[in-house]
Amino acid sequence: MEVTRQNFKEILPEVCNAVQEADFISIDGEFTGISDGPSVSALTNGLDTPEERYTKLRKHSMNFLLFQFGVCTFRYDQNQSTYITKAFNFYIFPKPFSRTSPDIKFICQSSSIDFLASQGFDFNKVFRSGIPYLTQEEECQLREQYEERRGQMNGAGPVSYTPPSGTGVCNVPEDQREFIRSVEEKVEALLKNTDQTLDLEPCTGFQRKLIYQTLNSKYSKGLHVETLETEKKERFIQISKVDDEERRRREQQKQQREQEELNDAVGFSRVIRAISKSGKLVVGHNMLLDVMHTIHQFCGPLPEELDDFKEVAMTVFPRLLDTKLMASTQPFKEIIHNTSLAELHKQLRQKPFRPPTTECPEGLQSYDTSTEQLHEAGYDAFITGLCFISMANYLGSFLTPPKSHISARSKLLEPFYNKLFLMRVIDIPYLNMSGPDLQPKRDHVLYVTFPKEWKTSDLYQLFSAFGNIQVSWVDDTSAFVSLSQTEQVQIAMNTSRYAESYRIQTYAEYLQSRQKNTHSSRKWASDGWADTSYPSVAMTTASGYSHTDNRHQAVKRSISPSLDEQNHGADSSWTNYSVKKIKTEGSCTQTYADVAGSCDWPRLQADEGGASVSPVAEEAELDEFSANQSQASETTPPALFDVPQVW
Amino acid sequence: MEVTRQNFKEILPEVCNAVQEADFISIDGEFTGISDGPSVSALTNGLDTPEERYTKLRKHSMNFLLFQFGVCTFRYDQNQSTYITKAFNFYIFPKPFSRTSPDIKFICQSSSIDFLASQGFDFNKVFRSGIPYLTQEEECQLREQYEERRGQMNGAGPVSYTPPSGTGVCNVPEDQREFIRSVEEKVEALLKNTDQTLDLEPCTGFQRKLIYQTLNSKYSKGLHVETLETEKKERFIQISKVDDEERRRREQQKQQREQEELNDAVGFSRVIRAISKSGKLVVGHNMLLDVMHTIHQFCGPLPEELDDFKEVAMTVFPRLLDTKLMASTQPFKEIIHNTSLAELHKQLRQKPFRPPTTECPEGLQSYDTSTEQLHEAGYDAFITGLCFISMANYLGSFLTPPKSHISARSKLLEPFYNKLFLMRVIDIPYLNMSGPDLQPKRDHVLYVTFPKEWKTSDLYQLFSAFGNIQVSWVDDTSAFVSLSQTEQVQIAMNTSRYAESYRIQTYAEYLQSRQKNTHSSRKWASDGWADTSYPSVAMTTASGYSHTDNRHQAVKRSISPSLDEQNHGADSSWTNYSVKKIKTEGSCTQTYADVAGSCDWPRLQADEGGASVSPVAEEAELDEFSANQSQASETTPPALFDVPQVW
Repeated sequence: MEVTRQNFKEILPEVCNAVQEADFISIDGEFTGISDGPSVSALTNGLDTPEERYTKLRKHSMNFLLFQFGVCTFRYDQNQSTYITKAFNFYIFPKPFSRTSPDIKFICQSSSIDFLASQGFDFNKVFRSGIPYLTQEEECQLREQYEERRGQMNGAGPVSYTPPSGTGVCNVPEDQREFIRSVEEKVEALLKNTDQTLDLEPCTGFQRKLIYQTLNSKYSKGLHVETLETEKKERFIQISKVDDEERRRREQQKQQREQEELNDAVGFSRVIRAISKSGKLVVGHNMLLDVMHTIHQFCGPLPEELDDFKEVAMTVFPRLLDTKLMASTQPFKEIIHNTSLAELHKQLRQKPFRPPTTECPEGLQSYDTSTEQLHEAGYDAFITGLCFISMANYLGSFLTPPKSHISARSKLLEPFYNKLFLMRVIDIPYLNMSGPDLQPKRDHVLYVTFPKEWKTSDLYQLFSAFGNIQVSWVDDTSAFVSLSQTEQVQIAMNTSRYAESYRIQTYAEYLQSRQKNTHSSRKWASDGWADTSYPSVAMTTASGYSHTDNRHQAVKRSISPSLDEQNHGADSSWTNYSVKKIKTEGSCTQTYADVAGSCDWPRLQADEGGASVSPVAEEAELDEFSANQSQASETTPPALFDVPQVW
Repeated sequence: MEVTRQNFKEILPEVCNAVQEADFISIDGEFTGISDGPSVSALTNGLDTPEERYTKLRKHSMNFLLFQFGVCTFRYDQNQSTYITKAFNFYIFPKPFSRTSPDIKFICQSSSIDFLASQGFDFNKVFRSGIPYLTQEEECQLREQYEERRGQMNGAGPVSYTPPSGTGVCNVPEDQREFIRSVEEKVEALLKNTDQTLDLEPCTGFQRKLIYQTLNSKYSKGLHVETLETEKKERFIQISKVDDEERRRREQQKQQREQEELNDAVGFSRVIRAISKSGKLVVGHNMLLDVMHTIHQFCGPLPEELDDFKEVAMTVFPRLLDTKLMASTQPFKEIIHNTSLAELHKQLRQKPFRPPTTECPEGLQSYDTSTEQLHEAGYDAFITGLCFISMANYLGSFLTPPKSHISARSKLLEPFYNKLFLMRVIDIPYLNMSGPDLQPKRDHVLYVTFPKEWKTSDLYQLFSAFGNIQVSWVDDTSAFVSLSQTEQVQIAMNTSRYAESYRIQTYAEYLQSRQKNTHSSRKWASDGWADTSYPSVAMTTASGYSHTDNRHQAVKRSISPSLDEQNHGADSSWTNYSVKKIKTEGSCTQTYADVAGSCDWPRLQADEGGASVSPVAEEAELDEFSANQSQASETTPPALFDVPQVW
């Protein structure tokens, strides 16, 4: 269902209900671009550390606009053995709602715009009818503005005008005295005659301020003063004779109107707040940028440090699941060779998978998967949910006896929680949102700097003596070069000693020189949580959205990453993480990692009201499953990591 | 007529013809925003110097996209006493035309987008069907790329690959030798068998480079080698057996195809080049930003210094006329009180003006002024031209005998040439594109810095003892304050000596402290031209557009600003420029200037093939006119300078 500024208010309660009833929610965003700095290949360097990747995305991707947001809710109907789906496709645009509201600037990247245009994206709808939004902070500011103005008009609150001399009173400047005197005369006349209202001539903002001030001090009761606009948008003051009750009634009306305006301005952010408040599982495909944009645009500024971001993100979305990461992990990665959303959706409709049956309530427009509407956010969210269900149900086939339906709350899915796919990174498959990240060894990697004329072929040439290498560009004048054997590193370092045009560092040296320029990284406490407290920037309103006080508690309850070693017998040490290489077809060896860590699926502690199967069955499920998944434990080779023009 | 990517090629010859035949051309641009930094009121500070204004616009306005460009050509038909008009509304979008072409990023300002949306702007058309463009430099780069690739393929030109060691030959790396050997075997087989062509497997760019290199050195004749794409966009090499003639024919075909691609990529820039080459009078309304955007987007980078910009602009558009400046100047300013385009157009259809009769050739969609399509660039260009004609013809009424038609080439119009309206500047009405700018005295102006909490009312309060003041905001923490009497300046300076929260400088002190940070301004030679030569950045192609060699000459021929003092008896010294104040209605005194300079209409030296009236009649015209215009010579008061959300 399409949602624009025109029908948003009407649809919002339905959206909130759907979220409340859902077993899980899938989301997708469309943006006006990806990188306003480095090329996409440099933005997603294959040897980025998670910190580097986050820093780059925060710096170079957040100035684009998230201008379409898809939300699809899925509720399982036990009786019909079918999922009830409600898909909403929201058009988003920061229409300035008043003359003083923020005038957002956003960047467009022509390749992304061109791509969306080729997919039939409706730019007219988004710019003419997009739903506005506010972050928490903007909402607070606006609320304060309203309250300040109200106080001013009642003569009750503080006057916003504070003279520099600190005298506390706004004197009427000499050249305004005649003007104010004439207004006072007109008001005296009004009070004596039978007219009910008096419209003053349009005047300047400063003059209106003086009028409010004068009338409030002289006639604190019996008059209602209001600023109105003429058809020509000129502002003028209307003064009405009112008794106390009428005056109070009018004030109340006005307050209600303002509250409504405020709600309208908060707009789409209310949907995000509803999803956040529900605490439901939120599913996305390759969703790191979606999560970052959502927080940045609708909640508050993204923190500088990755660890702080993880904490904020877990506050907003306590349970995330990335279908691209899921499809790239055992037991799926052996069967699924292209994890782009469209291809994944195709493959999951074929054996050994079974497409789920879904039903859309009458009155809601449903998507037909036979007429693809790829890159419409609502459609993408919808098929992301379908992919999730297919993969979840497939996990049930490993149980004895097999189960054809696996609930979104099943413990079978916990290993996939809060691990967001890391585009193109060679040896770190995911960003671990609820704990420290994997730290692969990079002893075989060199950091090379060179003149900006160099191309990849120059690097192949330079390292031709070392056999197969892999090049990951950092920027115009530097790249990582992965050698096939760690022993070659010393040889390369020795031969480069006298080179003038280029320079080689080991990866360790590179990290060291970087760390000199950045903060030392945070230490993680034994429970897997950062040993710091996040300064509460964004999460501080009374709108029922804030988790500020019980943030840690809430997050820990649902997604504690502590490992149940006895049951798994797996090694919980993240650093026990070896890198091996294989020779692939083609010109160069592709490096991929034997990620012991990625199999260490953290187990949930009991989730109140969560699991729908008995504890015994769960044990069986997990045993069955871990037996299977321990056989193969490689992450996806880099060839499968594609970078689409638009996520 | 709407012009998009779909019909551009077909329409272009008609556009070029229309430009060639025109008496004058009007233009208008629509942008995605105005300021990516300061608020519009700070961007257009009332006391900006021309240099400051240019620097701000260059820095804060050029990252927006000019995405609709209106061109309307006007040709006077003597027999019918009517103007033949041809209006074109071009949709512009930098669609990347290949994988290696620049991926332009541009900013959108939500207030501007919202405004255009409210005017019915068609964003889908612009993003789906916008015409691409290239600057001169981008075109050169692209041309070089093509030539390099061609040279590489012929084995004739330099190989782009230069190994870092400087050995000059691209060795086949060890791991590629097997691959290259297998290709050679296949080619040997092709030469022996009866097949005409051989398609190799898709391979990497580096491998294709090695293949080209190997085949060129081994089989320099008898083979045609070409890179093609599969349906899946994988690139592969096709090798064909050809004789010399066939080979040459194919090369030629390919070259033609590339030339066509190049022309398509240059796209809309060809329209600008045609207008530039024609040397015709180009009319716009409040056109400074239009001119800056046009040069920046379609020609080349804007120079840092204002004087250099003037020189570049005069090279691209040797004759400019701004209808907003014209309407704000004698004899129009007394009659026209709102110079916004829509209002101007309305007023110029009433007495004492007469709307011109126009005719649109069949087949070309014409605009109907009764159904306003304001802010569609083609329509705005059209009515800008109508305004120009009405005002030009009005000048004829001052002649004895009066003339109802004044040609676009009439000397009566020369006083308005190359003076671009300066939005909101209090005491400098225009940017003088063909000479030094007016330098008003600002002895009564103070530069005040203060805490960022201050508002305008704080400044009124601070200066309340001095009577009427005028505040022009510079940024969050500083503003110009114009006092009504110069003598008050010293008093204000004295009283502020011990102030801690704020600081006051005289305007002279302010200028001095600024100049320490910037280059000293250029000196103008006696002929009114900057005593420097502009580094030819953008104007260096062989496309027939370049004026590089005869630039000075061409410009001087048509718009020499040297004054004919004997005929006019006017004072040609720009510095003889006094500032006076008048008391206006309302709260504060508005300052405006008695611009002696603006009446010093520079006279053209004989323009070959230009004037259509006899020299005697011209003398009479000028005399009549200068007699009239010497009576009133004030510039427009600032109240008339409005800042629309979108120009």
